[in-house]
Amino acid sequence: MTLPRKHRSTVETALEYQVLAPAHFCFNIEAAQRPGQTLLSERLAVSSGVAVRSFTDPANGNRFIRFDAPVGPLMVNYQAEVELDMAPIPDDLAEVPVGQLPDDVLHYLMPTRYCESDVLSRAAQQMFGGMQPGIGRVRAVTQWIHDAITYLPGSTVSTTTAQDVFVQRAGVCRDFAHLGITLCRALNIPARLVVGYVWFDEPPQDFHAIFEAWLGGRWVLFDPTGMAPPEKLVRIGTGRDAKDVAFSTLYGAVQMTRKELRVDEGDRDVQLRIEAELSAEDA
Amino acid sequence: MTLPRKHRSTVETALEYQVLAPAHFCFNIEAAQRPGQTLLSERLAVSSGVAVRSFTDPANGNRFIRFDAPVGPLMVNYQAEVELDMAPIPDDLAEVPVGQLPDDVLHYLMPTRYCESDVLSRAAQQMFGGMQPGIGRVRAVTQWIHDAITYLPGSTVSTTTAQDVFVQRAGVCRDFAHLGITLCRALNIPARLVVGYVWFDEPPQDFHAIFEAWLGGRWVLFDPTGMAPPEKLVRIGTGRDAKDVAFSTLYGAVQMTRKELRVDEGDRDVQLRIEAELSAEDA
Amino acid sequence: MTLPRKHRSTVETALEYQVLAPAHFCFNIEAAQRPGQTLLSERLAVSSGVAVRSFTDPANGNRFIRFDAPVGPLMVNYQAEVELDMAPIPDDLAEVPVGQLPDDVLHYLMPTRYCESDVLSRAAQQMFGGMQPGIGRVRAVTQWIHDAITYLPGSTVSTTTAQDVFVQRAGVCRDFAHLGITLCRALNIPARLVVGYVWFDEPPQDFHAIFEAWLGGRWVLFDPTGMAPPEKLVRIGTGRDAKDVAFSTLYGAVQMTRKELRVDEGDRDVQLRIEAELSAEDA
Amino acid sequence: MTLPRKHRSTVETALEYQVLAPAHFCFNIEAAQRPGQTLLSERLAVSSGVAVRSFTDPANGNRFIRFDAPVGPLMVNYQAEVELDMAPIPDDLAEVPVGQLPDDVLHYLMPTRYCESDVLSRAAQQMFGGMQPGIGRVRAVTQWIHDAITYLPGSTVSTTTAQDVFVQRAGVCRDFAHLGITLCRALNIPARLVVGYVWFDEPPQDFHAIFEAWLGGRWVLFDPTGMAPPEKLVRIGTGRDAKDVAFSTLYGAVQMTRKELRVDEGDRDVQLRIEAELSAEDA
Repeated sequence: MTLPRKHRSTVETALEYQVLAPAHFCFNIEAAQRPGQTLLSERLAVSSGVAVRSFTDPANGNRFIRFDAPVGPLMVNYQAEVELDMAPIPDDLAEVPVGQLPDDVLHYLMPTRYCESDVLSRAAQQMFGGMQPGIGRVRAVTQWIHDAITYLPGSTVSTTTAQDVFVQRAGVCRDFAHLGITLCRALNIPARLVVGYVWFDEPPQDFHAIFEAWLGGRWVLFDPTGMAPPEKLVRIGTGRDAKDVAFSTLYGAVQMTRKELRVDEGDRDVQLRIEAELSAEDA
Repeated sequence: MTLPRKHRSTVETALEYQVLAPAHFCFNIEAAQRPGQTLLSERLAVSSGVAVRSFTDPANGNRFIRFDAPVGPLMVNYQAEVELDMAPIPDDLAEVPVGQLPDDVLHYLMPTRYCESDVLSRAAQQMFGGMQPGIGRVRAVTQWIHDAITYLPGSTVSTTTAQDVFVQRAGVCRDFAHLGITLCRALNIPARLVVGYVWFDEPPQDFHAIFEAWLGGRWVLFDPTGMAPPEKLVRIGTGRDAKDVAFSTLYGAVQMTRKELRVDEGDRDVQLRIEAELSAEDA
Repeated sequence: MTLPRKHRSTVETALEYQVLAPAHFCFNIEAAQRPGQTLLSERLAVSSGVAVRSFTDPANGNRFIRFDAPVGPLMVNYQAEVELDMAPIPDDLAEVPVGQLPDDVLHYLMPTRYCESDVLSRAAQQMFGGMQPGIGRVRAVTQWIHDAITYLPGSTVSTTTAQDVFVQRAGVCRDFAHLGITLCRALNIPARLVVGYVWFDEPPQDFHAIFEAWLGGRWVLFDPTGMAPPEKLVRIGTGRDAKDVAFSTLYGAVQMTRKELRVDEGDRDVQLRIEAELSAEDA
Repeated sequence: MTLPRKHRSTVETALEYQVLAPAHFCFNIEAAQRPGQTLLSERLAVSSGVAVRSFTDPANGNRFIRFDAPVGPLMVNYQAEVELDMAPIPDDLAEVPVGQLPDDVLHYLMPTRYCESDVLSRAAQQMFGGMQPGIGRVRAVTQWIHDAITYLPGSTVSTTTAQDVFVQRAGVCRDFAHLGITLCRALNIPARLVVGYVWFDEPPQDFHAIFEAWLGGRWVLFDPTGMAPPEKLVRIGTGRDAKDVAFSTLYGAVQMTRKELRVDEGDRDVQLRIEAELSAEDA
């Protein structure tokens, strides 16, 4: 008997803002188009009168929309139906010697804004350097983060780095992922951040951040939070760290008034709460 | 009367290492091929028996060589004769509103490993936010760094960031450039690091790091150290910060035994010191 | 005509907690007994059944109470009527050469948990080193903090240091004071933290933190926030930094449920809000 | 059979400086006078013509000398013969509940400049919180530091804190001690720094820093470096952290030209190297 390899999700993001002065918005909320992730349908809606520009980062396939917004309310809504191909992960994936890494993978060994693998190099070596290289070592890193770091909403801010999380032992999903990336890089295993949509057992639903490491010549997903199966994540973006895949980057005086996500995996309850304001604004 | 716009430099890097265990090397020392910088000739030599692979990063044109090296001495030598077109910089270049920045420039507003423009946002606004936008403001940032930061070799390490330099008020050329980048980004002016070869009045000759900012629809170079005219820099690499353009990245147990640079601008004295060891090793 | 030198304040603190597991409390909320500050009357009340121990730190005169508290609600109330002697500050106070500082003042030149005067040494020298020494220089430091740092409740946490505030340019009163202390120490001017009660024009009333510097052979108060006249502060404690004068230090699982301060300067409105719970508990 | 409890050491410090501009010196190099440590003889010599002032900090018994020094060479020499009473440490010393700590011990729970026990609180609890309280837990902390942190001269600077050392996993004796203090305080065990003279098996001889924790109603010494038996340390100073017990604090333009320590435990070889300059200067 084999497990089903196809997984279908319907995802939706509803964002609302109050623009206090003319502002520029840049969003990265659309599901990526990539092997193993097929967009069956999608729909993007932005408040009328806004000229939306879209582009894809050739380095990683991330899709962005950006636009100038006038003063007043602003609404962004994205829906997609996505089919994932959940290829099983072999248990014997090996670490790849640095000298054999592809040229375009090499950079994922470098420290970044949130992932100071240079500073944490000795700690990573001391904790995991003696282990057998391979996928088992990355799983051990992932398990250690899961055990040692407390999942605590509000314990970190937008400038918190992996080093901070390593010290304070608390964070949220992106902090867990940053620490995983950092420890892997410090062990000479290329690693990067992945953000997307996935169904959480415990609400509230939100964007999720996990990480992937280069093993056996491919990228393999790991989730130190254990909040959801990595292979069911509908990928939005891939980056060196969270700075590459912020779901929104806003330039100007803007207040977020609503942020709501829905993930429907077919056999689960729908989490969407319809808010009166949205209908009103659409009218 | 017009100033000469063509500038010719001969540059040379001589690096030597003692490899203590099999190691992987990655170098970014070759002059970039780009508009305004013409390579008249170049020569790269690596110790015999080493299989050198080269690649160019499509995102920024940086050229890399990489190779595995066996135990023993290793030598890398690069020479190039380069002609630069020193286009004059107009005095009225304007800052570009974020909404009008090209898609591929947008990312140079983001904080990076060494450039925490998020953390320094309020300081930048407080110090330079009230000034007239445009090239004059970036010149004011550059001048402030020049005046406020002490150039002090040995005062920073490989993990020092712009925030550290802002606090401790001392650093070397790459620290000066990182701080310039950081303050610009915090003012919503895209900025990035540029490294290369340029003649120093005061020895010792070394790689130089400066920064460029996006003004009037083009990149403009600035050097907060004032050590050399930016337009005479033979560019090696361009990156978000120093992590993108390290001249060498070494994986393994390796000791550097020699690092010597020469820059000859034709009308200047040659700085090359020939070391006996080099000849011996070449033989 | 001379200004009145006597100033009378009535101060009150009402604190309530929910103790979830047996805990130990240590408070530093009582007005200090010191020259220039006379306690006309005072009253301390703690929930019945609690054995309160009190002590005074001989190094700085700070008064502490401490006790074990059982599970359940806990109330602490302190009231005092205090007369201050507001000696005028001469305008020509000089900085004292380090060699002439009293032995017990020398230590206030040292960096502490929140005041990294070592790290900020060069910045302080660069910004204020060229000024005429004396009280005018400390006033310039105070004014610079007032102008450069944004008073922003919620922008800092209990571990925020002067270095952080110098970078992020935002904080609350204790952050302002810590930065003042730090810059003074970096200029070889002894400085320390003072906390107490003083009437705020803008509610809510809270404990206030300012700093004092050693000038002309005496301690002189400065308030970089400009929120209240330093000479009207009813002093609770004096310390190297906030770690010496925390108003409360709690060991155990405890929730604060009420914190209310009142300062009545006689000619001002009373700010006290009586809460029903307090009466109930007192009964 | 019982072990000998008396231990006799002869210690000597020879310091030389070149004073470039009139400067103020403060030293903390004299052996403390305290129960269990008897000074059989001592001799302090400072260059002629210098007026030396001495004082003892009443809070901790540390002895200081301070003086103004004119331009030119300066020499300080201290010798002492000390007898230590090495009381055996019981194996069953208990941690003392916070509520039962003496008033003057309470402060050794607070974070300090180098010991951010607040920031490392969760890490300490996660690593050692589940262990049996008592001296065994402090020994486990000490052993963990010994195993996890690499002793690496040059890896830290004068501003390095316990948090830095926890991250970078390298340091020297005072870093080891600061981390021990920090983890103890985070576990609600009072702890403080102790510096002094002790014989090292491996040269060069230098001042040594260890820590002590409050257990069973007394201070107990621990040395995470394992470089020497704690009970053989001739104590110079005791403090909250290294800021309280710097062997020298210099105000002015001064270059150290010689620093030499000797510790002679009677049955060991003498480490003293006589330098010609010293004799010359004494003449």
